[in-house]
Amino acid sequence: MMISTSLRRAVLIGAAIAALGRLASAPAAAQGDPLPSWRDGAAKRAIREFVAAVTAPGGPDHVPAPERVAVFDNDGTLWIEQPLYVQLAFALDRIRALAPANPGWRERQPFKSVLDGDPAAALAGGQKAILELVVASHAGVTTEAFAQIVRDWLATARHPRFLRPHTRLVYQPMLELLAFLRANGFKTFIVSGGGVDFLRPWSEEAYGIPPEQVVGSSIKAAFELREGVPVLVKLPELEFIDDGAGKPLGIHRFIGRRPIAAFGNSDGDLEMLRWTTQGTRSRRLGVIVHHDDAEREYAYDRASHVGRLDEALDVASLAGWTVVSMRDDWRRIFPEP
Amino acid sequence: MMISTSLRRAVLIGAAIAALGRLASAPAAAQGDPLPSWRDGAAKRAIREFVAAVTAPGGPDHVPAPERVAVFDNDGTLWIEQPLYVQLAFALDRIRALAPANPGWRERQPFKSVLDGDPAAALAGGQKAILELVVASHAGVTTEAFAQIVRDWLATARHPRFLRPHTRLVYQPMLELLAFLRANGFKTFIVSGGGVDFLRPWSEEAYGIPPEQVVGSSIKAAFELREGVPVLVKLPELEFIDDGAGKPLGIHRFIGRRPIAAFGNSDGDLEMLRWTTQGTRSRRLGVIVHHDDAEREYAYDRASHVGRLDEALDVASLAGWTVVSMRDDWRRIFPEP
Repeated sequence: MMISTSLRRAVLIGAAIAALGRLASAPAAAQGDPLPSWRDGAAKRAIREFVAAVTAPGGPDHVPAPERVAVFDNDGTLWIEQPLYVQLAFALDRIRALAPANPGWRERQPFKSVLDGDPAAALAGGQKAILELVVASHAGVTTEAFAQIVRDWLATARHPRFLRPHTRLVYQPMLELLAFLRANGFKTFIVSGGGVDFLRPWSEEAYGIPPEQVVGSSIKAAFELREGVPVLVKLPELEFIDDGAGKPLGIHRFIGRRPIAAFGNSDGDLEMLRWTTQGTRSRRLGVIVHHDDAEREYAYDRASHVGRLDEALDVASLAGWTVVSMRDDWRRIFPEP
Repeated sequence: MMISTSLRRAVLIGAAIAALGRLASAPAAAQGDPLPSWRDGAAKRAIREFVAAVTAPGGPDHVPAPERVAVFDNDGTLWIEQPLYVQLAFALDRIRALAPANPGWRERQPFKSVLDGDPAAALAGGQKAILELVVASHAGVTTEAFAQIVRDWLATARHPRFLRPHTRLVYQPMLELLAFLRANGFKTFIVSGGGVDFLRPWSEEAYGIPPEQVVGSSIKAAFELREGVPVLVKLPELEFIDDGAGKPLGIHRFIGRRPIAAFGNSDGDLEMLRWTTQGTRSRRLGVIVHHDDAEREYAYDRASHVGRLDEALDVASLAGWTVVSMRDDWRRIFPEP
């Protein structure tokens, strides 16, 4: 009896001290504000309240951890997309690099304009011209060679205004949000109109999002044995456009679960936001990042060609989505250089 | 001082007791053999040695946990595929259920034979007839309705020989292998020629593999707003066949990492096994489950229509893949009823 009581007390004291130790060694963010780059306001409050509600054990809105799927658009939501989608800047550089091997391009649009140093004229050809440039610049190599080409380009390319690598033009408040969600048992996915093979080589380092949690657009590929060595070769043919109504389809095909939270910034995210938040009785979160900070980043919405935000902004208030003002809600935009 | 010493002792005692508690409550498998349904032999040894090598910290073959991707074929590798792929049995039942709403089927092959009670004649139409039956029986409903139809069917359908639900005709040794790999930091994926929408509703419960880690064949779908509610409707049109050379393509598209271990049982897994194990200098594991146990399950390989294993068996010895004899290497085939 005596021993048993001592032991029990020892266990209790030990457990209490162990708990104190864990508290003391927890990262600073966990004790204070997990979203330090977010100013207090409606947007931050909506996010924190949602996370508290779905994680509260036994609460009415509780969601088991495996079902805590959060999806993020990439361009304009996680990193910069002006003055040009980063992947398009990559495609233009690659067209220039591939030009010597493709002499016909000197006489053919949209390639001619790119090689004449007038990319604006090339892009004036609209969606069709852009797709042609992207497909031509992304095909003809193995998937492994392409990943290396992307990494090499990102290591040297600089943004024309901020003069930084593009991977340093991710949004600091969104990095904190990704970490905050993961610390609360969420699985975070990218669901991007951009190319999945362009995103995966750097998504893990930049965002902590591993390749298998990246959904995106793609061109076809073919399996080949080259001298007995299996390779996948990228083909100049579209496979899937993960934008607009393609986003819910991509989510279903790749993830196979309906998200409980979605983050976007343009009309291309409208259907993904609908699919995440509408037609269900359980608690969901829809968030739109609004680019209204010309001084620290860019200000654009209804009239923009890149990242146009028009219909989704109208639906937002009806649908109860949270609109984040980059100017008012974010203390800072980018990480320290 | 006095208090500090007491506290320290209390902590030590508490920690020791907590550790004892953990030991006592650990599952039996973790203390002994993690693969109790595998007989000692070359196959079991190859698997255990591979796992030991890639997980040994600082070892020459060490692979960081995020890159420990293992891919598994489903039909014939994780569960039974004879006398008929389970999904095909489902498709036939569903054709019968849908027949009243599709009066034209009574006069049209391959539907007519199914409705006349002669599925063998229907399947004699080969790949084309099978695809037609699968596409017709899987389309026309929302993705959420389809998932429920699959769950309802699995709850009532029974295997013609073993008279059990098909989800109880998964292979016990493979369940242990999946758990063993996950306990060693592997992420386990299904890469199946079967339909991804057929697999996902039950893969988590049957195998511990969540929907986002299931790759498979698919038919197209469309995003629709029905009275303001977003739905995805399955269309009667093929999207992707995840078999043969489609498996490495599916792995690249869905997972975006090259696996370090692959498990299959038929020629449909040949390219996946090649892609996993060949053309790399790092240590990889390729495993083929050989159905050679007519008594406890089925015996088939080179001459079979379902799960034909011919070329892959020839390549196996050249490529150094492990061939598992279900008769000799497995103590038991299925879980307890």
